[in-house]
Amino acid sequence: MTGGLEWAVTTDGQAVTLRQVAAQAGVSRQTVSNVLNAPERVDPATRLKVRAAIESLGYQPSRTARSLATRQAGLIGYCLARHPGRSLFTDPFLHALTEAIEATGRRLLVFTAPEGAEGLATYADLIAQRAVDAFILSDTVDGDPRHGWLASRGVPFASFGRTWPEQGEQPGRWVDVDGAGACAELVRGLHSAGHDRIAFLGWRDPVPVGAAKDRQRGWRDECRRLGLPEQAAYADSDSMEGAAHAAATLLDAAQPPTAIVAAGDLLAVGVISEVRRRELRPGHDIWVTGFDDSLLATSVEGGLTTVRQPAAEITATLVRLLDAGPGRSGVLLDGRIVSRSSAPLDL
Amino acid sequence: MTGGLEWAVTTDGQAVTLRQVAAQAGVSRQTVSNVLNAPERVDPATRLKVRAAIESLGYQPSRTARSLATRQAGLIGYCLARHPGRSLFTDPFLHALTEAIEATGRRLLVFTAPEGAEGLATYADLIAQRAVDAFILSDTVDGDPRHGWLASRGVPFASFGRTWPEQGEQPGRWVDVDGAGACAELVRGLHSAGHDRIAFLGWRDPVPVGAAKDRQRGWRDECRRLGLPEQAAYADSDSMEGAAHAAATLLDAAQPPTAIVAAGDLLAVGVISEVRRRELRPGHDIWVTGFDDSLLATSVEGGLTTVRQPAAEITATLVRLLDAGPGRSGVLLDGRIVSRSSAPLDL
Repeated sequence: MTGGLEWAVTTDGQAVTLRQVAAQAGVSRQTVSNVLNAPERVDPATRLKVRAAIESLGYQPSRTARSLATRQAGLIGYCLARHPGRSLFTDPFLHALTEAIEATGRRLLVFTAPEGAEGLATYADLIAQRAVDAFILSDTVDGDPRHGWLASRGVPFASFGRTWPEQGEQPGRWVDVDGAGACAELVRGLHSAGHDRIAFLGWRDPVPVGAAKDRQRGWRDECRRLGLPEQAAYADSDSMEGAAHAAATLLDAAQPPTAIVAAGDLLAVGVISEVRRRELRPGHDIWVTGFDDSLLATSVEGGLTTVRQPAAEITATLVRLLDAGPGRSGVLLDGRIVSRSSAPLDL
Repeated sequence: MTGGLEWAVTTDGQAVTLRQVAAQAGVSRQTVSNVLNAPERVDPATRLKVRAAIESLGYQPSRTARSLATRQAGLIGYCLARHPGRSLFTDPFLHALTEAIEATGRRLLVFTAPEGAEGLATYADLIAQRAVDAFILSDTVDGDPRHGWLASRGVPFASFGRTWPEQGEQPGRWVDVDGAGACAELVRGLHSAGHDRIAFLGWRDPVPVGAAKDRQRGWRDECRRLGLPEQAAYADSDSMEGAAHAAATLLDAAQPPTAIVAAGDLLAVGVISEVRRRELRPGHDIWVTGFDDSLLATSVEGGLTTVRQPAAEITATLVRLLDAGPGRSGVLLDGRIVSRSSAPLDL
């Protein structure tokens, strides 16, 4: 592979070799080759030194020329979520994904597209332009059209998220976090701590994603298994205010819950504000949990007990699945419960 | 330009022309050309139809081949902020930037890099690999090394943000939001509403970015101009809890402020929680303002008065500056004050 990249680019009629670059930079030829092919393996100072030698000698292997030879763009496409800010996990996920792709010597191209079947035209553009070699999908929805469309065209992809409800039939390869399992674990932990009225607080339909239903299912199944009542309320909007109003209906009940499992951190922070407004103490009078371990979780006083999505593991798995070739498979990762003072669970 | 793209790709020995693709898809040749060169101008349904015709006929103009001819990657590079979640504006900014770049027929490549001079090696890699044609910079810091480094190499770039403190000498072209102006306007509005003890609540050093100092400067200068006392407190961390503690020191003063201008929305939400904890009413007893108009601003009860950064205008300006050629220039955009119940300003 190294040999193929020793392009002798001429400057003023003189052929410049990789050996000359190495000599000028005072490094080995392998190091120059690494800078060209896998720069992430070379420390920044050495990279800058080698780049300076390449520049001064006029030795410039072109990625464009190389990609024409291999028919690979070296780029992975990723569609940004349509509603920025909808999930507080978007930002850490994108950062981890970019690093995971870069670790394999490729780069990430981000794009926007309409939701649903209309968005397929953008995927078709990128494929036809050979702008990317493969796609990472996220923000999957029930019956997501992208998976079947890409699979039928033989375009490599990996999906963060399932295409509920037909996950058994889901085309391609996916990784997801076991939201149901994490919420069941929260219920078990709260029950062990003495709670027997554990309510769920989610989003009112239209639910943004299948993930929300999955979390609720985990809570509900575990409550049934333990013989606990199923109290639930739904926020009209993904906001603290919406969650506070929904929490108020729970706390006004004749038999109010002593713990509230919220489907997301923002909702949980809204629940905490309502609990405090009633001069009740979160983590004492009412235990509250969230989901995502976002910046909000460490932002509220004493911290929010929540479920951390393992961003590095998710994105490393995505990259592995991307290169696994055609087929169907799924990887379900555990969310990790992080206990803080809003619900001091003994984990 | 259209002519140059009528690549006749052969399938089974037969030359396929753009005319045949147009006939098969039942559209004009111009429409096929638009799908190839400026797909964003063609509606998704037509694009899918044309793509299907291209696929079935085996007509595939390659972006890679085209980019070799023009020596342009058609990609703009953008480094993701090192600390995801640090700013709640990151996510809407990236979305708007991607759309603005796409509107010009180019795509956005995102990458990660170490902070400071070490990160230049990654920029050097991308330039040497001809992976991108230009860069968009953001998260600028005092004396940011990237601007001078890129300018000295003749690499096109545009910066969202100034390289304080030497902004007059800043290499290249930049756009920024006038944080000082917006905070001064907040002080004037609060003063008109009858407040004469208007405190500032910022982040303790090391201040994350020059933008934070800029906002404080606007508040301070306007307080001085109006002859108001300068009360300020600083959060130890970018968290609601840190802000609540800092707000407590302000509210415990012999002459507590009646209004608090916070440097960011997350800080403002922390201030509100402390105000509520003291059974004071935000927007009545204590007026509170934030900065960013993030998802938090519409999330707290009654809403947070804050400063909206005009994402679409910022990113459209960045793209314009990117194509303006070498030179130095700056564009300072106004932030727009959005009045909600935490500080019911009469704008």
